Amino acid sequence: MSLPGYLAPDLDVGEWLNTQRPLQLADFRGRVVVLEAFQMLCPGCVQHSVPQAQRVARLFRPSDVQVIGLHTVFEHHEAQGSRAALAAFLHENRVEFPVGIDRQSGRLPATMAAYEMQGTPTIVLIDAQGRRRAQHFGPVDDLQLGTEIGRLLQERSEA
Amino acid sequence: MSLPGYLAPDLDVGEWLNTQRPLQLADFRGRVVVLEAFQMLCPGCVQHSVPQAQRVARLFRPSDVQVIGLHTVFEHHEAQGSRAALAAFLHENRVEFPVGIDRQSGRLPATMAAYEMQGTPTIVLIDAQGRRRAQHFGPVDDLQLGTEIGRLLQERSEA
Amino acid sequence: MSLPGYLAPDLDVGEWLNTQRPLQLADFRGRVVVLEAFQMLCPGCVQHSVPQAQRVARLFRPSDVQVIGLHTVFEHHEAQGSRAALAAFLHENRVEFPVGIDRQSGRLPATMAAYEMQGTPTIVLIDAQGRRRAQHFGPVDDLQLGTEIGRLLQERSEA
Amino acid sequence: MSLPGYLAPDLDVGEWLNTQRPLQLADFRGRVVVLEAFQMLCPGCVQHSVPQAQRVARLFRPSDVQVIGLHTVFEHHEAQGSRAALAAFLHENRVEFPVGIDRQSGRLPATMAAYEMQGTPTIVLIDAQGRRRAQHFGPVDDLQLGTEIGRLLQERSEA
Repeated sequence: MSLPGYLAPDLDVGEWLNTQRPLQLADFRGRVVVLEAFQMLCPGCVQHSVPQAQRVARLFRPSDVQVIGLHTVFEHHEAQGSRAALAAFLHENRVEFPVGIDRQSGRLPATMAAYEMQGTPTIVLIDAQGRRRAQHFGPVDDLQLGTEIGRLLQERSEA
Repeated sequence: MSLPGYLAPDLDVGEWLNTQRPLQLADFRGRVVVLEAFQMLCPGCVQHSVPQAQRVARLFRPSDVQVIGLHTVFEHHEAQGSRAALAAFLHENRVEFPVGIDRQSGRLPATMAAYEMQGTPTIVLIDAQGRRRAQHFGPVDDLQLGTEIGRLLQERSEA
Repeated sequence: MSLPGYLAPDLDVGEWLNTQRPLQLADFRGRVVVLEAFQMLCPGCVQHSVPQAQRVARLFRPSDVQVIGLHTVFEHHEAQGSRAALAAFLHENRVEFPVGIDRQSGRLPATMAAYEMQGTPTIVLIDAQGRRRAQHFGPVDDLQLGTEIGRLLQERSEA
Repeated sequence: MSLPGYLAPDLDVGEWLNTQRPLQLADFRGRVVVLEAFQMLCPGCVQHSVPQAQRVARLFRPSDVQVIGLHTVFEHHEAQGSRAALAAFLHENRVEFPVGIDRQSGRLPATMAAYEMQGTPTIVLIDAQGRRRAQHFGPVDDLQLGTEIGRLLQERSEA
């Protein structure tokens, strides 16, 4: 999905891991943000999208491209709903980028609902001005993701 | 590790999933048993060994080669220690072979200790007479695992 | 290697395959050009770079990104130097983008020398104004290549 | 295809590479032989079967499992029919096991016809007594191939 570019909904997160203070998208104006929504028990997330987000985090300086994880638990709450479970998952998988736990609220977590995500994995690209520019449900290959990031980076440098 | 072939220690399991009754190794005399010890938050298990065990389960008839999973939780108990967490993991990853939850007992789970496993993943091959014939800590490639299974199958057919 | 962006040397090609007429870079002003230099007996080319170039050719419209292959034979001439050998290779590997046979001339083929390529595979990115903007010897991963293509595409659309 | 086990047809080879003297299957009685029929321009061979044969050659001692390549050129003769082309291919791909060039003879090469192979890749398993025990056209996965090799190895050790 390519998007005209309205301001991205803010992150409605209960707790954060891998960061010392709560994050807001507004903190990252001037950077491209890659928002990776996942669940720790979703095989497509564990095998494809989380490793891909780690590759993105390694390829770019955080001052250019900031990767943010979002744990959007909408099923198997008992198994994956605790902070301890997520912390163990991030530790074992050596995920170092900040990850927020999407706030539980009604049927779907709050941020997941605000973005109208259809499931996990979902990847969202937010430009340097904070606008949501792309959102993909399901796996995206590296060549396409790279192209989309490259466009937003170039756009920023031309601004 | 190749082993001279003493009788494999029995499984000391608290609960079973994917089976309607508790299993004993003695139930499988006459078959080659592939025992896959894993933890749901161990990346090498999730990405390599559990999918490999699924390939084994698909390639052979259960009456020839029986795959049994063993969830040997020795770290991150809060995150992966519940039956619900494991059930969600098996469901999401479409694991259909029986999986036992190794009985918690002291520092290490009971079966893990009895087999003197060094960590996860560990794969154990048990022959048609119930003897432990090989045990590998860490990833084993398909060619080698296939060869070891093939030898035990042939040995059985020559008995 | 990132390049300041001098005009890319023209292609000095003896014969073309997968195109009905000889090509010049000047034909592609307004498009991003991905120039893939390879040899049919170079394993890194066959296993990584040629399939990657095929992915690029599938992802983009040729009017946006034009992939051009360049067969730069600098070793094993007897084995890979003939048009027939290359035609068979392209057919078997279902390569459909145009491929030029770099003109033999002295120790190294002519275009390879003009670009000062160090070996194969080499990938060159040429912008919509015909300037050489990046040149990589050895494998480049999809995420990085996508980013570079995306930047050149965005630059073009902002011009 | 599993085979009852008639004596494998002998190799009708014009030239050999990676060996100092011509080979006959009879030289390998007492070993399991993996015969890998390929063409250097067959993508399934280059990407799957030749690397698999190299894995087999690395996993086993030649005194247990002998890998033999067979270059069965039945198309693109001009491109892949020369000894020089094959030598370059083997060198670039670091293939070290012996490879015979199947003797051209009529429509199909001689050994290919004697084995009634349907194309490339084809893998043939020959037991320690020289009997053809399995023949597969198309890719075989490592788990299955390992199992078949393991059975023949065990059978040999029980003889």
